[in-house]
Amino acid sequence: MLRGQMMDRPLLTTSILRHAALYHGSTAVTSRFGQEPKHSYTYRDAWDRVQQLANVLTRLGIKAGSRVGTLAWNDFRHFELYYAVPAIAAVCHTVNPRLFPEQLIYIINHAQDEYLFVDPMFVPLIEKLWPNLNGVKGVVVMTSPDFMPKQTGLPNLLCYETLMAEAAEGFEFPEFDENTACGLCYTSGTTGNPKGVLYSHRSAVLHAYGFLTAPGISVTTSDAALVVVPLFHANAWGYPYAAAIAGAKLVFPGPKLDGKSVYELMEEEQVTVSSGVPTVWLGLLAHMRQSGAKFSTLKSVTVGGSAMPKAMLEEFELTHGVTCMQGWGMTEMSPVGTIGALNPEQQKLPVAEQHEAKLKAGRALFGVEMKIIGPDGSEQPRDGESYGELVVRGPWITSGYYNDEAANRGAFTEDGWFRTGDVATIDETGAMAIVDRAKDVIKSGGEWISSIDLENAAMGFEGVQEAAVIGVPHPKWQERPLLVVVPRTGASIGKAELMAYLERHVAKWWLPDDIVFVDDLPHSATGKLLKVELRRRFANHPLPGIQAAE
Amino acid sequence: MLRGQMMDRPLLTTSILRHAALYHGSTAVTSRFGQEPKHSYTYRDAWDRVQQLANVLTRLGIKAGSRVGTLAWNDFRHFELYYAVPAIAAVCHTVNPRLFPEQLIYIINHAQDEYLFVDPMFVPLIEKLWPNLNGVKGVVVMTSPDFMPKQTGLPNLLCYETLMAEAAEGFEFPEFDENTACGLCYTSGTTGNPKGVLYSHRSAVLHAYGFLTAPGISVTTSDAALVVVPLFHANAWGYPYAAAIAGAKLVFPGPKLDGKSVYELMEEEQVTVSSGVPTVWLGLLAHMRQSGAKFSTLKSVTVGGSAMPKAMLEEFELTHGVTCMQGWGMTEMSPVGTIGALNPEQQKLPVAEQHEAKLKAGRALFGVEMKIIGPDGSEQPRDGESYGELVVRGPWITSGYYNDEAANRGAFTEDGWFRTGDVATIDETGAMAIVDRAKDVIKSGGEWISSIDLENAAMGFEGVQEAAVIGVPHPKWQERPLLVVVPRTGASIGKAELMAYLERHVAKWWLPDDIVFVDDLPHSATGKLLKVELRRRFANHPLPGIQAAE
Repeated sequence: MLRGQMMDRPLLTTSILRHAALYHGSTAVTSRFGQEPKHSYTYRDAWDRVQQLANVLTRLGIKAGSRVGTLAWNDFRHFELYYAVPAIAAVCHTVNPRLFPEQLIYIINHAQDEYLFVDPMFVPLIEKLWPNLNGVKGVVVMTSPDFMPKQTGLPNLLCYETLMAEAAEGFEFPEFDENTACGLCYTSGTTGNPKGVLYSHRSAVLHAYGFLTAPGISVTTSDAALVVVPLFHANAWGYPYAAAIAGAKLVFPGPKLDGKSVYELMEEEQVTVSSGVPTVWLGLLAHMRQSGAKFSTLKSVTVGGSAMPKAMLEEFELTHGVTCMQGWGMTEMSPVGTIGALNPEQQKLPVAEQHEAKLKAGRALFGVEMKIIGPDGSEQPRDGESYGELVVRGPWITSGYYNDEAANRGAFTEDGWFRTGDVATIDETGAMAIVDRAKDVIKSGGEWISSIDLENAAMGFEGVQEAAVIGVPHPKWQERPLLVVVPRTGASIGKAELMAYLERHVAKWWLPDDIVFVDDLPHSATGKLLKVELRRRFANHPLPGIQAAE
Repeated sequence: MLRGQMMDRPLLTTSILRHAALYHGSTAVTSRFGQEPKHSYTYRDAWDRVQQLANVLTRLGIKAGSRVGTLAWNDFRHFELYYAVPAIAAVCHTVNPRLFPEQLIYIINHAQDEYLFVDPMFVPLIEKLWPNLNGVKGVVVMTSPDFMPKQTGLPNLLCYETLMAEAAEGFEFPEFDENTACGLCYTSGTTGNPKGVLYSHRSAVLHAYGFLTAPGISVTTSDAALVVVPLFHANAWGYPYAAAIAGAKLVFPGPKLDGKSVYELMEEEQVTVSSGVPTVWLGLLAHMRQSGAKFSTLKSVTVGGSAMPKAMLEEFELTHGVTCMQGWGMTEMSPVGTIGALNPEQQKLPVAEQHEAKLKAGRALFGVEMKIIGPDGSEQPRDGESYGELVVRGPWITSGYYNDEAANRGAFTEDGWFRTGDVATIDETGAMAIVDRAKDVIKSGGEWISSIDLENAAMGFEGVQEAAVIGVPHPKWQERPLLVVVPRTGASIGKAELMAYLERHVAKWWLPDDIVFVDDLPHSATGKLLKVELRRRFANHPLPGIQAAE
């Protein structure tokens, strides 16, 4: 083996903002707030402030390896923490303030955050959590003195701008190993404790490069990017890094994400690109319909977090002329894994077929390896038909949850691929489509049946308000699908008619072995269908025909 | 220091082509040749062939660390070697076949190439060199049996396609440290032996990412890139890697780079982007003028290797509507350092001012750090006025020439920046402009005078055919400029008139202390002005006024 003779220079997020200051120095970073007036400065200003903030952090006793928590919306101060904390080799731990108090307490204690940086609106929340927090030395409110809470029960409540005003300018940032941790983000599933993903400087830089070079992504020096995805949500898809590399203008919306606010901000700041969850886009599109407004600069939106509804795609592209794409990823993946852009051949298809293709999650970024595997771990064909569990690998994918041996059990294949927990197909063009959650797919005689596809088929039948499909144990087939249906109020659904309808829409061996009608289905507090609970309830449901077979 | 928990996956060039095969599999890679008919296949085909080629290499005894030389134009086989050789951890050593025989012998022996892969047209050249080559085990002609030389004096002459036909399909590529060498390229200056730059897998991948994310660069899945820059010339600016990441169609022109051939290829393959040296573009533009032809798909060209003439910029942009930019780099930099795209503010300027801005070399890619330093090593202001020696740093910049301690002496600053040997300015927008070669700049009283700017000024005076400016020793100022002029045949130039003309065009303290008229200037075989020789000739030239001052 011969070693190349290239400089051994580390990939550090600090270099990103330094680069932006030197080469995109006059480009704007603008912020909206709940209370404070609008704020706008440049990448050059941000770089100066980040150096000052590093002096603040140092004075607070933050050291290499220290965790610093944030509970904040998207604005320039949160952006400054994104750079200043990792720049001194500490870890920026973004906490989702919308989690349940018990989850917040678990997360902050598990991460051992030394300080919390929070928006003024979250001070009451922190006051409530405070008695249960271990080791947090103080709380810095991310605002100016004017907007500080008038009184507080917190022992050490500091003001961000006061600390900044007292801090020296300039900071000689250290250089260190690119594998040093830079960020921490917890992901919470439906069961168990939240799990921490610990990003490195290397992974953050490579992810930004990978995102910017993905087909369909256009974040350039001529663009203005509205960061709708929260900075506490898996690095806001890496926008704070990617936009600074590309020299795109950054627009931070603060807490107001209703349709009207998002639209007005887009127009005011001449936003060209944005990424967000479907909820935000539904609100925006509703506002557009109601107000009859038009986008004057918006070119492209990416939809992530959950599947893009077809109606949303059509409304963005056909009504508004805005390119709409899916992005798929996970907190464990920094987060972006695929982008659902069309390849040149697909771009020549009729619009309806383009839209069919766009309903897939898309093709991998360069840097992400993905494949689908069968129950025995063998790779399944990339034919767009075969199902398999989706596993991924790459330099910006987790190698294990932070301080959590229990969570790591079963999280990886034997040869080190991360198990996404999704069942998917991959087609000849490399486009991946999520079929189901691995734990929800019905394993029938060695083949897999998508509960989601069956549910969607059942939802098409008149009178069905909600449908859920679960696997129930079967002596011969291991599992067979059971369809649980909530009829619309006043509707009466015939089991035979519904079965006949399904027969016309899914493969014969997919047909549920039974249909049960119920008054309602169990949901979580956030509205998610609780299939675990449903499986428990129907664990002993007698499938017709089994008695006879035995 | 806390270590991030991200997968430890190496950045390998192999991953690039694998990615292209999986996600841009149907995208074309087309080639033209001197003799063979046109060839076209896809990234998926290329990936299959590269695996087969790895079997060929293994059978030839090529091992990890082995150097494999190429003397070839741009076509798909050269592209295959770019990937197959590094994929087995060997080193692809691209040799410039246009060098002098003594340089070729030095380079091949210094690199210890085990095999040479050559185009049919270079077989006679290799036959000539053969007696002086040490350790080359054989020569593989990059063609099919039909185009093999009928007879040869070489002991072990093999046919590429014959070897491929005999080779097994499929290859399990090994994984290894990303710092492993992947490529080797020698750079030859005007003095001394050629110096080898040893690229690593890491540097090649990062350079491709950096290139693709540079403002102004548009190499996307919708583009077709014509690789005019030779594959033996500093990785062809990284196109073989960058295009495969982006999923752009690749077009390889073979040896025919005259204006007509390049134009016809662009039209036939619907080329949208290309990069090359001014010579190629001058030929292309001349053809466009003579034929009155129009570009139907070309959007953008980049000019590198030497400064972009203003007339070329204007002709591309104003006559043809093709965006034209400079790129600046060095073999030592993998090679791209800057791209001369306009920032959003500059894009709003009148065209004439845009063009002025575009005459600078441009802003650094993210991944390249650059600064200008004074004689004492201190950083000079980024004000667009201050001169300094340009030094660079980054993960795709050489850390030392291959096996060449002598060449490394003085090549780096004490704190590890690479000395480019250029004197430059950097302005507030980060745009760098080359002022002069460091050895040619005139050091006058602690200030620097650009010999190039003075020469350009003198060239504007009627009757001047060629002008050269050198520094001659001066007791008070250390050096002062001497202008050496070749008048046009029959022209008579007055020294006082020329001096008066210069007074109106350069700063007073820049004015040459003397002007000398000569019949001709010393040039190298390739037409480069030999300032070393000129300085030797005028070392004792008495400057007027010195006698008096002493």
